[in-house]
Amino acid sequence: MLTLFHWKDACSLASLITLKEAELEHDVYVVNLPAGDQRKPEFLALNPKGRVPALKTDRGILTETPAILIYLAQLAPDKKLAPFDDPFALATLQSFNAFLCSTVHVAHAHRMRGSRWADEQSSFDDMQRRVPGNIADGCRQIEETMFAGPWVMGETFSVADPYLFVICSWTKVDGVDIADFPKLHDHFRRMSDRPSVQAALAM
Amino acid sequence: MLTLFHWKDACSLASLITLKEAELEHDVYVVNLPAGDQRKPEFLALNPKGRVPALKTDRGILTETPAILIYLAQLAPDKKLAPFDDPFALATLQSFNAFLCSTVHVAHAHRMRGSRWADEQSSFDDMQRRVPGNIADGCRQIEETMFAGPWVMGETFSVADPYLFVICSWTKVDGVDIADFPKLHDHFRRMSDRPSVQAALAM
Repeated sequence: MLTLFHWKDACSLASLITLKEAELEHDVYVVNLPAGDQRKPEFLALNPKGRVPALKTDRGILTETPAILIYLAQLAPDKKLAPFDDPFALATLQSFNAFLCSTVHVAHAHRMRGSRWADEQSSFDDMQRRVPGNIADGCRQIEETMFAGPWVMGETFSVADPYLFVICSWTKVDGVDIADFPKLHDHFRRMSDRPSVQAALAM
Repeated sequence: MLTLFHWKDACSLASLITLKEAELEHDVYVVNLPAGDQRKPEFLALNPKGRVPALKTDRGILTETPAILIYLAQLAPDKKLAPFDDPFALATLQSFNAFLCSTVHVAHAHRMRGSRWADEQSSFDDMQRRVPGNIADGCRQIEETMFAGPWVMGETFSVADPYLFVICSWTKVDGVDIADFPKLHDHFRRMSDRPSVQAALAM
């Protein structure tokens, strides 16, 4: 059995959508981030990083969205959520997910999590002013150079799509209008209509 | 033929070491970051991100260290640089590499690349003060909760090892003494002795 430790506004939503796309049996354990559940000893014993997502498996805990997404794809080979038989295509997908986690998500985190990297209120204010521009930059790079369409990887839906959906769902609070990026906007709307997304958001 | 776009002080060193571990034929193209080569039109045409590593393949360009490392492992299956036949082990490796790229490398980048996320000198100074603590935190998490030993994944050398080596090679400038982390220190010394590392550093 798989148990996802999840909070609705966190990137763990990508893992939850993927669990539903993969039709893998799973439980969801809600980690209320605003209430500080992630810093409680019982959660830290499970995931010392104090973050979500964490995925409990029969073999142990997995963390980090790109790793969990590929793992879920590998558990449900019939769903073809990642191109394991094509090293270049798999690397392209992994490159996309790595860009989201190390660049776009990090840019987003500078809005409310500046205390990870600085101490002064003036620094937090400075960082927050840069967030809309950095997020728009990330969206532009994806729109212009990474998005094959109609899905991230082209004709085939993959685990990159739920992850992109979650990142795009944050653009509004980050001060970016996703409608400025027609391909991403269309992708966001089509993702919003998928049963997997509706089921994940309903939790 | 594979061509790696590389700079000696950048994380592209992990890809170069892995090319040598995998014994894959390759060229190296030096992108002098301090001289600004990464912002030249001819490089941006190849990699719009303006970063290294970039790996030129017969199918196109790949970027992002975690993606390139798994790709190289997949190209040289006899070297067993990643456990493709064990989804949980592969996910554990990918989780490790994702932590390096999205947390530890990002913490390191706040020392000299603060202008990615802020504009004021006072913010850069504030960020720089936090770097030693954040890097030490990352090292501690790896030492205590992620490092199986003697290699990252246990008995088997994998593509996580060159990446960890590169991150550890930055700790000195980040204000952290790697000797404070005995497992990482020992790993760093054993990595330094490998022919792949010596060949990569000699370039």
